[in-house]
Amino acid sequence: MTLAKDFLEEAKTVLGPSGWSEDADKLKAAATPWRGTWPGETPFLAMPASTEEAASLVKLCAQHRVALVPQGGNTGLVDGGTPHGEITVSMRRMKKLRAVDTLNNSLTIEAGAPLVDAQKAAEEANRLFPLSLGSEGQATIGGLISTNAGGVAVLRYGMMRDLILGLEVVLPSGDIWDGLSGLRKNNTGYDLKHLFAGAEGTLGLITAATLKLFPKVAKATGWVICKSAQDVVDLLALTRDHAGDTVTSFEIIPANAIEMVQKDVPDTRDPAPSPLPWRVLVEVSMAQEDQARETLMSALGDAIEKDLAENAIIAESGQQAASFWHIRETIPLSKRAFGTAINHDVSVPVSAIPDFLKVTEDEIHKLVEQAEIVAFGHVGDGNLHYSACEPKDATSAILSNHAVEITRIVHEQAMKFGGSISAEHGVGRLKRDELAGIRPKAATDTMRAIKSALDPLGIMNPGRVVSV
Amino acid sequence: MTLAKDFLEEAKTVLGPSGWSEDADKLKAAATPWRGTWPGETPFLAMPASTEEAASLVKLCAQHRVALVPQGGNTGLVDGGTPHGEITVSMRRMKKLRAVDTLNNSLTIEAGAPLVDAQKAAEEANRLFPLSLGSEGQATIGGLISTNAGGVAVLRYGMMRDLILGLEVVLPSGDIWDGLSGLRKNNTGYDLKHLFAGAEGTLGLITAATLKLFPKVAKATGWVICKSAQDVVDLLALTRDHAGDTVTSFEIIPANAIEMVQKDVPDTRDPAPSPLPWRVLVEVSMAQEDQARETLMSALGDAIEKDLAENAIIAESGQQAASFWHIRETIPLSKRAFGTAINHDVSVPVSAIPDFLKVTEDEIHKLVEQAEIVAFGHVGDGNLHYSACEPKDATSAILSNHAVEITRIVHEQAMKFGGSISAEHGVGRLKRDELAGIRPKAATDTMRAIKSALDPLGIMNPGRVVSV
Repeated sequence: MTLAKDFLEEAKTVLGPSGWSEDADKLKAAATPWRGTWPGETPFLAMPASTEEAASLVKLCAQHRVALVPQGGNTGLVDGGTPHGEITVSMRRMKKLRAVDTLNNSLTIEAGAPLVDAQKAAEEANRLFPLSLGSEGQATIGGLISTNAGGVAVLRYGMMRDLILGLEVVLPSGDIWDGLSGLRKNNTGYDLKHLFAGAEGTLGLITAATLKLFPKVAKATGWVICKSAQDVVDLLALTRDHAGDTVTSFEIIPANAIEMVQKDVPDTRDPAPSPLPWRVLVEVSMAQEDQARETLMSALGDAIEKDLAENAIIAESGQQAASFWHIRETIPLSKRAFGTAINHDVSVPVSAIPDFLKVTEDEIHKLVEQAEIVAFGHVGDGNLHYSACEPKDATSAILSNHAVEITRIVHEQAMKFGGSISAEHGVGRLKRDELAGIRPKAATDTMRAIKSALDPLGIMNPGRVVSV
Repeated sequence: MTLAKDFLEEAKTVLGPSGWSEDADKLKAAATPWRGTWPGETPFLAMPASTEEAASLVKLCAQHRVALVPQGGNTGLVDGGTPHGEITVSMRRMKKLRAVDTLNNSLTIEAGAPLVDAQKAAEEANRLFPLSLGSEGQATIGGLISTNAGGVAVLRYGMMRDLILGLEVVLPSGDIWDGLSGLRKNNTGYDLKHLFAGAEGTLGLITAATLKLFPKVAKATGWVICKSAQDVVDLLALTRDHAGDTVTSFEIIPANAIEMVQKDVPDTRDPAPSPLPWRVLVEVSMAQEDQARETLMSALGDAIEKDLAENAIIAESGQQAASFWHIRETIPLSKRAFGTAINHDVSVPVSAIPDFLKVTEDEIHKLVEQAEIVAFGHVGDGNLHYSACEPKDATSAILSNHAVEITRIVHEQAMKFGGSISAEHGVGRLKRDELAGIRPKAATDTMRAIKSALDPLGIMNPGRVVSV
């Protein structure tokens, strides 16, 4: 892609000397996603330092019909933020904390700030910003909003879209929409923030956000052993009977994933070895620590009595709780160390999890008998990270040869149970066409109409989410 | 408005003999809103009994360019659901409960069902559907979604849009979008449900919804006396320090409103008479009743110690709690019995409430010295129902003569503090033009582009929310 000389000159003027790069290494880095898959290319890297600079740049892009890819921490998993010929607009210089309002429980922060900055600012105000996920040091607020990120506390606090009160967005015309607001109630027209959230940068460039803060809470963390996926789902209902919606995390971990972690990180201790197939990592969060602990104890005691749990441990310290979480968070890397893994990010109604697991595993085993199934994740949200794995030393690499069919099975089964083939990672370019085939036509048509109406020139992250 | 004979004939065939009316009384009732204000007119009342009938009707409307007004319980407050020449599509025959999924904490119900039906179905499944408001026997699920209703538990559970998992919508083309889904995580494109929610029927006709259910909780209810609005706001923060986000309601009531209620309903007892100006009705909800009570007691004890509260009562029974709520819920009617009231539905950031109250009252008193200010409502959401009142026996009716200026003051001050002039009631026709002047131009332009793209013929509730 060659860019018109006058566009480049004007863009450089608008952005100032520190606001752009044509350095080959920097362009390559911007075009190389986190996992190294689907490397792209970009002729120009823009790094605006303010909303005004970002708006002037987008206005130029509109004038010259230059397509752009907004980029945050570059940690996406669906080829949404990697340029493939477009210019790249990195938001990482825009990371100011603009305001904290403790009594209103809100803060306003720029889009390029990493998630940890928002978490820290909340902590300093004696508040909680509850979004939490593995890449929180790298992933930016703008990227998290654009992909509607999930994480480990969705069960109680919702997805990223549920945590925003207002947005500031540069529209495809280059106009700025100042929708920053600390209001919790504001019924004054279509809810634009929910349209830009999850749009993966295809409708506008998010430059800042007002986020919701929550009261700080103390956690009680449990590790539970269950004999079946049905018991896991029933355990969630029972725990909520005792704890209401103070259950903030409810993660399922299969026994074979713990073996993988132990093989990969040899000093990992299994908190309670057992031949049974499932573990649950459960967290109850309340303002009063003793209440949280007491509530979790009563729930897990009842679960053992009702034969929904074989055994349960409640962490005696923050350190022990962290050791439970360490196992959970290490699974993705240990799975990679184990060998080949065909990965999926699906969701189904919580009630359908047991049947989905059984049927999908049976179907995959019909195809590849020795496939090792690792299904873990946010069972409280119906969201499973579902992998078919094969050890590194497998002589025949059977699994890789069946990758496409395995993905077809997992996605078909998810859809059959009323589920989704992209629960939290998004669409990007990776799943765009598959989703156009799966989604109701009326939905795809509506999305295309919105895209065409708001970005008639097709310059904002074109080809992601929907083709028009 | 005269309708083409062939449209009428086809519509009657599609709807069947019980599915339409041209009876003058029924047409008049459909065109008369709840409060009797802004009466309209309608040439034809459609009452589809199924999604398919609704879709066939909308398809006919598109073919014949016939405009329609979707109508639920007809309890709206902004002239959004009253026909002014359009045909009326009453959804009240579509009220089936389609499914309840206890383990997934969801239920699917048709748009014409009143809110109480959803509440009851949840209760029967040992779950909670938390939306609650005065008109819950009349207001329908579809109307509540279309207007993104609020109510008394927003602080903890959010607005109506936060309580939906999926929607079924008849698009302006007559195509059906089946977006019913029990999924909590589903990042597969633009979030259409959030676009239809709060769109007041201008983008499509909602026919059914999948709603989120929550664990049932026990409540502890407190009545607190405060000396200033600043203390009320600080009390909210302190209560949340003790109770986290188990604070489900936090309503402010001025002393003069209690007097109005007592005058109107003579046997009403003031729970704790005091010359101080403010009361707070606070509710903490937890799975364990004793924990809720203990937590509220510790919070209110601390508040008295820190001089944020003069006195506090915790209800000893459900009956006593109901008597507190009765005062709160009676204010709107008693205000009407009192005399003239110029009413507003505004929100500001919670932290701005004390200054907003002071400045606005001063400004109004400069204009009408004797105006009685009654500001009550959902302080936890920054949402105040703000009225300037004058007793019935006022000799000069000064207030009514200044209604326009008073509204200008209240709205100007709300905007100055970063607030909204329609916190929960919506836009309709009533506030459409005022909002077009107040909202950022980029937002109004974007809304118009969406409306034109999704309803190019302009047949869905035209002239509400935005003009195009």
